[in-house]
Amino acid sequence: MAITVVGSVAFDTIETPAGKRERCLGGAATYFSFSASYFTDVRVIAVVGEDFGKRQEAVFQARNIDTRGIEHTAGKSFFWEGSYLENLNEANTRITDLNVFASFNPKIPDIYRDSEYLFLANIDPVLQRRVREAMPQAKLVAGDTMNYWIKDHRAALLEVLKGLDILLINDTEARMLAGNNNLVQAARAVKALGPKALVIKHGEYGATLFHGGRTFRAPALPLEEVVDPTGAGDSFAGGFFGYLASQPEQSPAVFRRAMFYGSVMGSFACERFGTERMQKLTRPEIDERFNLFRELTHLA
Amino acid sequence: MAITVVGSVAFDTIETPAGKRERCLGGAATYFSFSASYFTDVRVIAVVGEDFGKRQEAVFQARNIDTRGIEHTAGKSFFWEGSYLENLNEANTRITDLNVFASFNPKIPDIYRDSEYLFLANIDPVLQRRVREAMPQAKLVAGDTMNYWIKDHRAALLEVLKGLDILLINDTEARMLAGNNNLVQAARAVKALGPKALVIKHGEYGATLFHGGRTFRAPALPLEEVVDPTGAGDSFAGGFFGYLASQPEQSPAVFRRAMFYGSVMGSFACERFGTERMQKLTRPEIDERFNLFRELTHLA
Repeated sequence: MAITVVGSVAFDTIETPAGKRERCLGGAATYFSFSASYFTDVRVIAVVGEDFGKRQEAVFQARNIDTRGIEHTAGKSFFWEGSYLENLNEANTRITDLNVFASFNPKIPDIYRDSEYLFLANIDPVLQRRVREAMPQAKLVAGDTMNYWIKDHRAALLEVLKGLDILLINDTEARMLAGNNNLVQAARAVKALGPKALVIKHGEYGATLFHGGRTFRAPALPLEEVVDPTGAGDSFAGGFFGYLASQPEQSPAVFRRAMFYGSVMGSFACERFGTERMQKLTRPEIDERFNLFRELTHLA
Repeated sequence: MAITVVGSVAFDTIETPAGKRERCLGGAATYFSFSASYFTDVRVIAVVGEDFGKRQEAVFQARNIDTRGIEHTAGKSFFWEGSYLENLNEANTRITDLNVFASFNPKIPDIYRDSEYLFLANIDPVLQRRVREAMPQAKLVAGDTMNYWIKDHRAALLEVLKGLDILLINDTEARMLAGNNNLVQAARAVKALGPKALVIKHGEYGATLFHGGRTFRAPALPLEEVVDPTGAGDSFAGGFFGYLASQPEQSPAVFRRAMFYGSVMGSFACERFGTERMQKLTRPEIDERFNLFRELTHLA
């Protein structure tokens, strides 16, 4: 079933111990949709500037991603520059130029309106809510957010959480949102705000799913080299939600497998700069790594 | 098969967000032996002062632990005081009084000399080596160490590592020992120093086993309340090595189960102050939690 994702499509300049790349194709919606496209149809809602041209468009099309919801407007696309020289787990942001993204007002193509799966990537919760309300047919809605919205736009964020089926955030965000350092207690507090399921991502240590009174922990793959962790969380979300959307029903067993697929896609994302690795995977490669994750965690 | 463990037996004063306890029975060899005692026979080599009396002795005897290798000497036992008020993952040491431990010279009772399993808890590597050499019959030798020995007693530590079958350390120690921040590369470098198997503990995120070219990741249990993390690592080691020693052979499948038992025992240790929880477990409780860990990580 088709997923509609709303979020950023951007250019990123990234420096890591492995090197530096200028103006890679990036943005949460980009990573999410590339990742989810290996599991199901994906439709993107975003805004880009004149620097987003046929070359970038072609990368989405190569993955059969519907880009009719990407609005082209005068100006420059969202630009981010950051480094991970000291710590591969946390970006040190140097530049954030919102550019055309500053006045983003999501427009939903009519042809997207039958999407039963909706992913609200990390953007202003006011926009997340607007998109959610404009797509009442969506039967499963997942979303992401970040410390900035948690701290300074809490009221708007709480409105979004009320309508979420699944929230995906990291440890720090979960603790900040709940005001509680214990992860189990924080998870309970966050779920009381609305989300029926909560995925807390632990970076190189994997992720934990809190769902229906049960807890499930997926590992991350211990990687020989982390070339670039940018987009790993969005790629996790794409694999997780893409797999959920590809299944006839979302049973607990399907949720568990979705956690593994999320971790699998997050691990691929780190292996090359930007979305490079996410552009050219194959489903057999993905399933081979899925089996590696099983091997990594299962007793026999 | 019997394990001989050499290490500290101490008194700990501990403050955590859950409260404060004065002079709990503690020390690495104490946690290790209580934990391992649920799986196999345990013999302790340590030194204590006059403050270690019949009451303390009785706690070891209740777990059927052989204490004939605990030397009683004039003076006070090793005393440690620390708190975890800011961060449950890292102790803030207030007092370390080595006392009788400062001149510890391990004496191995003859009746211990048939032990096929030897655990060298975190003590001066010069002593670890001396004990290892005095017990040549030991067919499986595991050990622990800490940042202090890695930094300031590296040469002596490297001699110990050459003779180890299994080293158990945490992330920070592995990175420091290898001089490499990438955990996979660090693991390879550490194994090149001697240990055939390496267990890297990640605190609340579990632990990873690097053994025979394979990687296995055991989770930690997400705990509603961490009362006191003191000794969790030593309890992990006790469960891990105790289970290994209880098995007729150490196959890869047995190593995996040992990782789970290690995590299980580490999770129990955190639930009460000091060794309180480790004193009164039952094997059915342990196996019930083992199954919970399986549930937490297995797809179906």
